[in-house]
Amino acid sequence: PDKAAVAAVRERDAQLTKPAGSLGRLEEIAEWLAAWTGRKPAVTRPLVAVFAGNHGVVEQGVAPFPQSVTAQMVENFAAGGAAINQICVAHDLGLKVFDLALDYPTGDITKEAAMDEKTCAATMAFGMEAIAGGTDLLCIGEMGIGNTTVAAAIFHGLYGGTAEEWVGPGTGSAGEVLKRKVDAVSRAVALHKAHLADPLEVLRRLGGREIAAMAGAILAARMERIPVILDGFVATAAAAVLHAANPAALDHCIAGHVSAEPAHAKALEKIGKSPLLSLGMRLGEGTGAALAAGIVKAAVHCHGGMATFAEAGVSSPD
Amino acid sequence: PDKAAVAAVRERDAQLTKPAGSLGRLEEIAEWLAAWTGRKPAVTRPLVAVFAGNHGVVEQGVAPFPQSVTAQMVENFAAGGAAINQICVAHDLGLKVFDLALDYPTGDITKEAAMDEKTCAATMAFGMEAIAGGTDLLCIGEMGIGNTTVAAAIFHGLYGGTAEEWVGPGTGSAGEVLKRKVDAVSRAVALHKAHLADPLEVLRRLGGREIAAMAGAILAARMERIPVILDGFVATAAAAVLHAANPAALDHCIAGHVSAEPAHAKALEKIGKSPLLSLGMRLGEGTGAALAAGIVKAAVHCHGGMATFAEAGVSSPD
Repeated sequence: PDKAAVAAVRERDAQLTKPAGSLGRLEEIAEWLAAWTGRKPAVTRPLVAVFAGNHGVVEQGVAPFPQSVTAQMVENFAAGGAAINQICVAHDLGLKVFDLALDYPTGDITKEAAMDEKTCAATMAFGMEAIAGGTDLLCIGEMGIGNTTVAAAIFHGLYGGTAEEWVGPGTGSAGEVLKRKVDAVSRAVALHKAHLADPLEVLRRLGGREIAAMAGAILAARMERIPVILDGFVATAAAAVLHAANPAALDHCIAGHVSAEPAHAKALEKIGKSPLLSLGMRLGEGTGAALAAGIVKAAVHCHGGMATFAEAGVSSPD
Repeated sequence: PDKAAVAAVRERDAQLTKPAGSLGRLEEIAEWLAAWTGRKPAVTRPLVAVFAGNHGVVEQGVAPFPQSVTAQMVENFAAGGAAINQICVAHDLGLKVFDLALDYPTGDITKEAAMDEKTCAATMAFGMEAIAGGTDLLCIGEMGIGNTTVAAAIFHGLYGGTAEEWVGPGTGSAGEVLKRKVDAVSRAVALHKAHLADPLEVLRRLGGREIAAMAGAILAARMERIPVILDGFVATAAAAVLHAANPAALDHCIAGHVSAEPAHAKALEKIGKSPLLSLGMRLGEGTGAALAAGIVKAAVHCHGGMATFAEAGVSSPD
């Protein structure tokens, strides 16, 4: 983080025509943007990056939608018909969608590792290159039938507890489907438990392609000094892998929202993030991060566009 | 509320390319807009209305800023230098500012009624006419040095408890200033306590011009079927007066945010509203409502612009 840029933000903020601290998290956001970009807070090329993958574990009957929906939704993103398209229109955000070998689902984590070492590394590298086109605010999202199952497995693998603690309905699993989801996560973590001390092994064995790519994108953003807004439960799993490897790895990230997926709030606590929004959403696609980007843009406008007490001829406190 | 319009929203929502319920409060917002406008959810002329007033009670030394700041900030709004101007730019919202006889502060509520009957009624009527220019989403905000003191007095008058429970720092009162604020609210409610069974008397005796005007604007919006987003602690006091007179009076309103003013959360509970945002803000000016309007606009985009499962060729749940 760039301490001089943060100091400049604080100095200007103290002169703006408002009581000190009265913009709350909007003031924190201005400091955070300056800390990571090293300049006056600005958002000129916001980008939502959505990574899509398929998962062998769906063979365990863990999801209410068929696996074909992942590719269908990627088509829907391209056609502008998904929720994330509309939120990007509302808040004037760029959108890029990356599908990751959808015809080749990962290994079923209840039986084998999701990815071999080469695939995992190459997919992280792909995610790193995905943001090379340039952005100064990156929203990280995903799509993938079955991916709340593997995200729950990652959290269970990283943080322990029971499978029940980390598994929720995802896109709407209930009854027998939800029971199979809990069982699959439990069996997967038990199968791989001898190898879960290394967070990257957790990612490789229990994760998925979109999760590996998101982890790569978050890493690359850090190296490029690009602030990141995390989306929901699955994006947080990608972030959690990096956080487990290095607790400072997410200092350039904020949590866009806490989703309705029951374990998301606990996962955010584990990575030390307080979500900006809490709107009962549980869709993924980057939708929560993109809504949060609207708040971030407003924070930038306030910091840059407000008058100072001197400029406006407004009296300071008595 | 228009039940047919709500049913039409639900029918369309069930066909959109997302799991049912996965947009959380965005789905509720679409239904709420349809319920009150009687049409497909749309926001074409969003308006932030900011009402400004001055308060005799500042003579009790309850505020850290001098009373002259109210008029100075009205000038700042006109020049585009305030936080609310910038949030309106960020979310493309109209802004109208109404100053209410700033050179004639209300009566000091620790000694007399804030307004006589004619002034209170005329100010409510002024607020009602303020929205006559037309809008289909009204954000209600205010500016007025000393007005968190009178808002606290309104809550204490309506809901009982102790002055300490309802008084907070406002623009930054602390130490002796905060003690005087608590004392002023306590004395004001004690002075007028024989007349507080009628909510409109609470408004007239303990309120202020901007609070009366906001109450009028909220009432007029109801008659015109315009959805309203309430801002923070002071706007909620105006709403609470109406709610005390008729618990259904705020059905066309949502709470834009819960502010950092400590008693705001409790005030929102009293009027039965769950805030859309919680960002630690405590500025007023309609800033919290205007940020919430950005979420509302995104909800409208999602409902109107997303593809259905049939249109997109996406499979429904198994």
